[in-house]
Amino acid sequence: MSDRSLLVLPGDGIGPEVMAEVMRIIDWYGDKRDLAFDVSEDLVGGAAYDAHGTPLTDATMERAQNVDAVLLGAVGGPKYDALDFSVKPERGLLRLRKEMDLFANLRPAQCFDALADFSSLKREVVAGLDIMIVRELTSGVYFGEPRGIFEEGNERVGVNTQRYTESEIARVARAAFELARRRANRVCSMEKANVMESGVLWRDVVQEVHDAEYGDVQLSHMYADAGAMQLTRWPKQFDVIVTDNLFGDLLSDLAAMLTGSLGMLPSASLGAPMANGRPKALYEPVHGSAPDIAGQGKANPCACILSFAMALRYSFDEGEEADRLERAVEQVLAQGVRTADLLNVEGASPATTREMGDAVIKALEASL
Amino acid sequence: MSDRSLLVLPGDGIGPEVMAEVMRIIDWYGDKRDLAFDVSEDLVGGAAYDAHGTPLTDATMERAQNVDAVLLGAVGGPKYDALDFSVKPERGLLRLRKEMDLFANLRPAQCFDALADFSSLKREVVAGLDIMIVRELTSGVYFGEPRGIFEEGNERVGVNTQRYTESEIARVARAAFELARRRANRVCSMEKANVMESGVLWRDVVQEVHDAEYGDVQLSHMYADAGAMQLTRWPKQFDVIVTDNLFGDLLSDLAAMLTGSLGMLPSASLGAPMANGRPKALYEPVHGSAPDIAGQGKANPCACILSFAMALRYSFDEGEEADRLERAVEQVLAQGVRTADLLNVEGASPATTREMGDAVIKALEASL
Ligand SMILES: [Mg+2]
Ligand SMILES: [Mg+2]
Repeated sequence: MSDRSLLVLPGDGIGPEVMAEVMRIIDWYGDKRDLAFDVSEDLVGGAAYDAHGTPLTDATMERAQNVDAVLLGAVGGPKYDALDFSVKPERGLLRLRKEMDLFANLRPAQCFDALADFSSLKREVVAGLDIMIVRELTSGVYFGEPRGIFEEGNERVGVNTQRYTESEIARVARAAFELARRRANRVCSMEKANVMESGVLWRDVVQEVHDAEYGDVQLSHMYADAGAMQLTRWPKQFDVIVTDNLFGDLLSDLAAMLTGSLGMLPSASLGAPMANGRPKALYEPVHGSAPDIAGQGKANPCACILSFAMALRYSFDEGEEADRLERAVEQVLAQGVRTADLLNVEGASPATTREMGDAVIKALEASL
Repeated sequence: MSDRSLLVLPGDGIGPEVMAEVMRIIDWYGDKRDLAFDVSEDLVGGAAYDAHGTPLTDATMERAQNVDAVLLGAVGGPKYDALDFSVKPERGLLRLRKEMDLFANLRPAQCFDALADFSSLKREVVAGLDIMIVRELTSGVYFGEPRGIFEEGNERVGVNTQRYTESEIARVARAAFELARRRANRVCSMEKANVMESGVLWRDVVQEVHDAEYGDVQLSHMYADAGAMQLTRWPKQFDVIVTDNLFGDLLSDLAAMLTGSLGMLPSASLGAPMANGRPKALYEPVHGSAPDIAGQGKANPCACILSFAMALRYSFDEGEEADRLERAVEQVLAQGVRTADLLNVEGASPATTREMGDAVIKALEASL
């Protein structure tokens, strides 16, 4: 019995096959690095719907609340398109985020040298890129009330409410400052304080939290539209970016696309610390369930593997082991072992999902 | 007396010197193309504040309401930083937009071949790019009520309201469809209908206007975050993009940065048709007043010149003459005549603002 618990939710589409490679890596850490994990596995998304008529059972939700970290593969697929909104596969993921109150969405945008040519940007602009966008995930205009489509006079009016409390801003700001301390110690906060009062409060609270608790971290502020421009012009100027739910939605996707390899990108969603000091946490690749290639052994397991590396770093404080795993992935790519989505050499034959997993484990072995 | 009236507001910083070149080009059209304009000139921004204690007098506002098109240089500068918010130079521009009810902001993102290397994106991704973003400019979350910072319980809460009426959406959709008909006949509408009711209404109304009035235009819909990704990945897939005030704020700046030459980009803000059928209209470069180089003859007049080209096209229905002017600018750049901001050859000596104007007029002459 380890004191590190993981709930693994492979989900739908390519989820199970990429997660299978992660499971082997988890085992490797137990065998070779004395890092044992208590791993349980369960259903989410369409797989849970097929078995139980709901994309997330109460029992699974309960288990998720009681582990150190949840590792999710992917949810969704055309098979479930006709389902009622309330039981769609994505609702399983949304329930996890909501009930675990995962307010800080960490979206790293990293571009390994070996993959820089996949970007639409010039090599020198993106090679070696390593930035982290922290998106507030549980409040803002996607959640605020009032909301809806109303009749007014003779026409319809669509309404949503952007609403942030001081404490909602402060807690995600703290998450960003904590992250910065583990990285290059710089945070850039983005809003539209020039035209939105919620942006004025955002800026003020981030600055107050900084001045009171994180004076050692370098803090700057930028309007979100200028942020979109600067991310496009020279993304390496940033270390950690913290921003609200809506701006973070756009900017994290923009940053992901800068790298050119969406199949490589992990994410973490973190909440408040639990009794043991570890944060509530869910790790998942940014990519979707890719039903078109599911079950064929073609999927790239790297984003899911790198999501586990984030778990090592942020849930279990094993930064050096996370570095080891990230380096292993980087080496494998540099050696030219690539799944089909990363192939750029005419006539080269792609590695299978399993072969990528093998190569990563081999690189881990070589690191000892 | 011509039946084409222009109000020229050079404004602050580099505004007067770039506008001086535009004035020469306006004269050229009167002399050589039989396109005479009734031109009046007035003050806006800091220049108006210095003379009258307000960034826009009622008399100037009145004149703006009664011309076919307003041509604006730039406003603002450090000299006015300490002024009260209500009389800051930018308020002059905002008053024009508001009282003229300029709801459709046209932001072209064009990348002339000769300047493609200035982009952070690969040449093939941006060379020849020619897309148009139509941003709703008078409503949405930057204007909706309630708004403010309130005390609630023991903490502050920042609130803004995203609010769109059916008619606000319909009129900007029409503007986009009309534009598309003069271009490649394709419109992509962007919102977040997956998480915002105002986005659901946006999508529905754009589709309804299309089906009822613009069935000949090809219409697609995209989530705004996917839009940010696709603009970064392969911007040439788009023709006209129509989106709301906030998404348009970010996406138009992102699209501008794709081109890499902000000093080249014009804009138009259009309102409802006046009695003579022409729309209320304000044309201005995207760049600012650049106080650091003002008065030195270094400024690039191209964005202001291209703003006048937009006036030819959208206010005066002189598309061929607009093409002529845009081609003239393109030729000048291809010849290597460049202001300092566009120089990329070591040791080359930059053209002055006046020399750029001369070169454009020479190219216009050669086009006859
Ligand atoms: Mg997104
Ligand atoms: Mg903007």
